[in-house]
Amino acid sequence: MDTIFYNGKIKTMDKVRPEAEAVAVKNGIIARTGSNEEILSLGDSDTRKVDLKGKFVLPGFSDSHLHLIYYANTKRKVELSQAKSIEDVISLCQMGLERLTEGNQWLLGCGWNQDYWEVPVFPTRDDLDKISKDIPIAITRTCYHATVINSKAIEILGLSENIPAFSNGIVETDEKGQANGILRESAQNIIWNNLGAPEIEDLKNRIIDACMDAASKGITALQTDDFETFTGDTLDLIITAYKELAAEGRLPIRIYQQCLLRTPEKLQAFLDKGYKTGYESGFYKIGPLKLLNDGSLGARTAYLRNPYCDDPSTRGVALYDQESLTRMIKMGHENGMQIAIHCIGDAAIEMAVNSFEKIMLEFPRIDSRHGIVHCQITDMELIERIRKLNLLIYAQPIFIRYDRQIINARVGRDLGKTSYNWRAYADRNMHLSGGSDCPVEKFDIIPNIYCAVTGKNPENDQDPAWYPENCLSVDETIKSFTIEGAYAAFQENERGTLSVGKYADMVVLDKNIYEIPEEQIKDIQVEMTIVNGVIKYSRG
Amino acid sequence: MDTIFYNGKIKTMDKVRPEAEAVAVKNGIIARTGSNEEILSLGDSDTRKVDLKGKFVLPGFSDSHLHLIYYANTKRKVELSQAKSIEDVISLCQMGLERLTEGNQWLLGCGWNQDYWEVPVFPTRDDLDKISKDIPIAITRTCYHATVINSKAIEILGLSENIPAFSNGIVETDEKGQANGILRESAQNIIWNNLGAPEIEDLKNRIIDACMDAASKGITALQTDDFETFTGDTLDLIITAYKELAAEGRLPIRIYQQCLLRTPEKLQAFLDKGYKTGYESGFYKIGPLKLLNDGSLGARTAYLRNPYCDDPSTRGVALYDQESLTRMIKMGHENGMQIAIHCIGDAAIEMAVNSFEKIMLEFPRIDSRHGIVHCQITDMELIERIRKLNLLIYAQPIFIRYDRQIINARVGRDLGKTSYNWRAYADRNMHLSGGSDCPVEKFDIIPNIYCAVTGKNPENDQDPAWYPENCLSVDETIKSFTIEGAYAAFQENERGTLSVGKYADMVVLDKNIYEIPEEQIKDIQVEMTIVNGVIKYSRG
Repeated sequence: MDTIFYNGKIKTMDKVRPEAEAVAVKNGIIARTGSNEEILSLGDSDTRKVDLKGKFVLPGFSDSHLHLIYYANTKRKVELSQAKSIEDVISLCQMGLERLTEGNQWLLGCGWNQDYWEVPVFPTRDDLDKISKDIPIAITRTCYHATVINSKAIEILGLSENIPAFSNGIVETDEKGQANGILRESAQNIIWNNLGAPEIEDLKNRIIDACMDAASKGITALQTDDFETFTGDTLDLIITAYKELAAEGRLPIRIYQQCLLRTPEKLQAFLDKGYKTGYESGFYKIGPLKLLNDGSLGARTAYLRNPYCDDPSTRGVALYDQESLTRMIKMGHENGMQIAIHCIGDAAIEMAVNSFEKIMLEFPRIDSRHGIVHCQITDMELIERIRKLNLLIYAQPIFIRYDRQIINARVGRDLGKTSYNWRAYADRNMHLSGGSDCPVEKFDIIPNIYCAVTGKNPENDQDPAWYPENCLSVDETIKSFTIEGAYAAFQENERGTLSVGKYADMVVLDKNIYEIPEEQIKDIQVEMTIVNGVIKYSRG
Repeated sequence: MDTIFYNGKIKTMDKVRPEAEAVAVKNGIIARTGSNEEILSLGDSDTRKVDLKGKFVLPGFSDSHLHLIYYANTKRKVELSQAKSIEDVISLCQMGLERLTEGNQWLLGCGWNQDYWEVPVFPTRDDLDKISKDIPIAITRTCYHATVINSKAIEILGLSENIPAFSNGIVETDEKGQANGILRESAQNIIWNNLGAPEIEDLKNRIIDACMDAASKGITALQTDDFETFTGDTLDLIITAYKELAAEGRLPIRIYQQCLLRTPEKLQAFLDKGYKTGYESGFYKIGPLKLLNDGSLGARTAYLRNPYCDDPSTRGVALYDQESLTRMIKMGHENGMQIAIHCIGDAAIEMAVNSFEKIMLEFPRIDSRHGIVHCQITDMELIERIRKLNLLIYAQPIFIRYDRQIINARVGRDLGKTSYNWRAYADRNMHLSGGSDCPVEKFDIIPNIYCAVTGKNPENDQDPAWYPENCLSVDETIKSFTIEGAYAAFQENERGTLSVGKYADMVVLDKNIYEIPEEQIKDIQVEMTIVNGVIKYSRG
C-alpha cells in the first residue's frame, strides 16, 4: 500500500460503506476503507501512514463554477472588496501604486462593490484621477460586469475622442458626451485588449498558484471558465498551459474546463481543433460549452421578465436573442458538447429553457447533462420546466451573502421568495452542484456551505436568515459540493465519494460538520486536502 | 416527434420525474415525459401515437445473467422440465423422435430434474435405450452440469472402450466399469464436440428468435454467457453473429456479452483480438470476463466450506485452485475487463472474494464493477467482505422455486437461513441485479419478481414463503431488474429509468405491480415491450 490515512472520522458519502476510520490508497486510488485495525494491517514498511488525529473527513470538495485564471490574475491586483467607501478605494490603490515595479504598467484593482459603501454610487474617472493622472488605472466591480478607469487610461485607450458603440456593452458618458470612466460588459474588452496575455510559463505558474489556494480550501476538483480572461485568441494558450501542467503532473487538483465560446465561429474553430466535452485526460478535461446569456443582478444587467423594481427603466441585458441562443445550443448539442448557460434573471433562464426545450425535442441526445449556471431569479413554473429537461443547476449559495441586500429591491418580494431556491431543486431530486464563481466570491467552500444550510451571512450572523425555507440540509449541501460536482463533470464514478475504486480525493476538517450546531459551520477549518492520495495542503 | 405513447400509468423510476401519463420519443430516445395533454401537443401528423389504454408502464426489464444461445438451442430440443418421472422423459423423447428429420441427427433433450420425480434418481443409459437403440440420445439436466446419454451415443462417442479422465468432469461407470450414460461437468463436452456448431446465418436466426421470446417477457436488455454453447473455438462465430445483427439493425433487444474464457490462453487470445469490456457499439457490447468457479447446488457440485449435509462424502467441485483463480482475475483486471464469477457455494464465493481482495488491493482500478454471479450460499461475514469490495451481485430470485426444496438439506438450516439473502444486499445499498440464468429457469421476469418479493413458488403458492425476511420490496425488486441491470452493464446513464435523454426502452404491464396484493404479482401479463421507442412485442 502506498499510503494509509488512519484514525479519522471518515464520512465516505458512499451508501454501501458510509463510515470508516481509515483509508488505504494505492496508485492514487482508494483500495480499501475500514477500521484502523483492518486498514493498518494492509501496510508494510514502505507504506506512508498519516494520522488523521480523530479529525472529520469528507470526499474532497468540488467547486462547479469559477474563473481560475481570473482569480490568479486578481492576486496581482489591488483587492478592493473590503473598501467601505470611495475614499477606501483611493487609499488602497495608492498603496498598490507603491508596489508597481515597471513604468508602463497599469494599476489594476478588483472586487469593489458600491452597494456596501456609505454612499452607494459608482466611482468615475474623477475619483480615480485622485490616485494618479500618469499611471493608467482600471478597477473592476466584484461582478466583473463593469470596470472604472481614470483619465490616463481613457487617453491610452483612445476614448478621449471617438467613443465606439458596442452591441453588448457601453462606454458611459457624462452630460458633455465625454467618457466618465465607467465601462460596462463587453466595452471592458478595450482595456484587456491593451493589456495582452502572459507568456505560457508565467501562466502555468499562475495556474499552479491558484490551484494551491483552492486546495487550501479543501477543493480537489473544480470547473473553470477562463477563455476570456485575456482578450484576443488565447484559447490555445490556456488549453496548452493546462494540458502541459497535467502532462507534467504539476496540476495539484482536477480541472474541468468550461469553454466560453460566444459565437458560432468561435465554437466551430474550437470543434475543428478536435476538442469536445470529455476530451483530454488525467487532471485536465474539456468540459461544457459555456454561454453567457445575461449580466449580473448587482449591475442590473441580469435579464428580467419585468422591469427592475428599483430601476423601472431597465429589464437588464440579454446577450443573445432567442434565435441566436437556440442556434448556439443546437450547434453545441449536435457536436457532443455538454452546455452550461450563465443565466441570472428569470427572463434569461426562460430563454435558455425555451432553447433547450426546442433543441432537446428536435435532437434528443443520450445523457447530455446540460445545465444553467447561477439560475438565481426563479419562480416555481420555471423550476418545473427545468426539472422536465433534467437540466443541471450550478448554484452559488455564497451569493446570498451580498445578494440578500438587493434581491427584493431588484425583483420584488414575491419573486425574491422563490429565487435562490435550492430547496426546490433538492425536493425534486434535481442535480444541484455548488460553486463560488470565484473571484466574484472567495472559493472558500465552508462559508458557502454555511450559506446553503443557514441562509445567513457568514460575516454577520446577526442578520436574519434569508428565506430559511429555501435552505438545504447539511447532507444535501455536502452532496452538492462533492458527488454532484463530480456528476456535473461526468466523473461520478471516479470521484465524489470515498469508495473503493475511486480516486483518493479527500478533505480533512477540524470538526464534524454533521454534528456541530449550524451556526458553528462557518468556523470550521480545513486541516488537510488530499488529491489522488497525496497531501496537497496541510494546515500550519 | 417520431412516436408518442400516451394514456399510460407510467412509473419512470427516475426520482426527478417519478410519474407520467405519456412519453415522446425521437430517434429512439426519450425526448419528454409528462401529462397526456403536454406530450400529445408535441406530435404532428407524422407522429405515431400509441394508446397505452391506462396500462402500467415501467422501464424495460433487464436480465443480468442468462445463456441466450443455449436457450435458442433448447428450443430445438425436447423440453423435459415438466416430466414427473423417468417414464415421462421416455414418452416425451419418443414424441420428439417422430419430429427428427435427418437420419444422422441426435435426439437432444433438456430441462429434466429428478428432484421433482416420484422416484428421484438420475436416469441412465438403460432408461434411454427404451427410447431408441439406433438414434443417439443425450438429455441434459436443468442445471446443465450433467447429461445422460444412451448406448448408441456411448458407441458413437467411443466411450464403450476407453473412458477418458477429466480434470473437471467425470464419465460415470457402473460396477462393471462400463459407462452408465451419466456425464458430469466438462465430460459433457465429448457430446458437444461431436455435434459441432451451426452456420452463421442459422445462428443469427436462432439469436433473433430467442431475443423475440425475451422481448415477449418484457426484457429489453440482457447479459448473456454464450461462448461455450458449442465446443471448439466458436468465439469469433458468436461475436460475429451478434455484431452483424447489431450492424444490420436486426437485434431486437440490447445484448451485453458475458465472456466465458476459462484459461489464461483463451483470455489472452480474446484480448489479442482487441476485445475489452465496453467495446463494440449499439445493441451489442462486450461485457465482463465470466469465470466459473464451481458447479450447481442441485448436482452437489457447488463448492462448500463444509461437506454436503445430505452427502458428507463431498464438498462439491472448485473449478480453480485459489492461485489459478487469482491469476485469471489479475489478468482480466489488468486488461480492462469487468469480471463476473459464477459462485454458488460458500467456499466458491470465499475463494472469489479472496482473489478479488488481493488483486483489488495490489492493482486498484477505477470503477471496475466486478461481481459474483449467483452468490447463493452465504453467511453475514461473506456478505460483509463482498460489501467492502463494492462487488456486484447477479442474483436469480426465481432459483428459490426449485432450490427451496434442497437448500436446507444440502447446507443445513443455519446456512440456509442466510443464503439467497437479497435483503442483506438491499439493506447495505449494494448493487443487486436480477436474472434468470435461462434456460436453467425461464426468463419470465414476472415470476422472478414474485419470488424476490414473496419468497414463494409462483407455481405453487400454497407452499409457505421461503425465509420471507430475506425478501425485497416491490420497488427494490423492480430496481434490480431495471436500473441495476443497466448499472451492471455500465449503462445506467443510457437506460434503466424512463428519463429524458435515455433510450425509450419500456415494458407495459396489465396491472400496477405497486398496487396489487403481492400474491397477484405472478399473474401480471406483459402487454407490450418497447425498445428504442419501437414496439417489439404486443400481446394478442
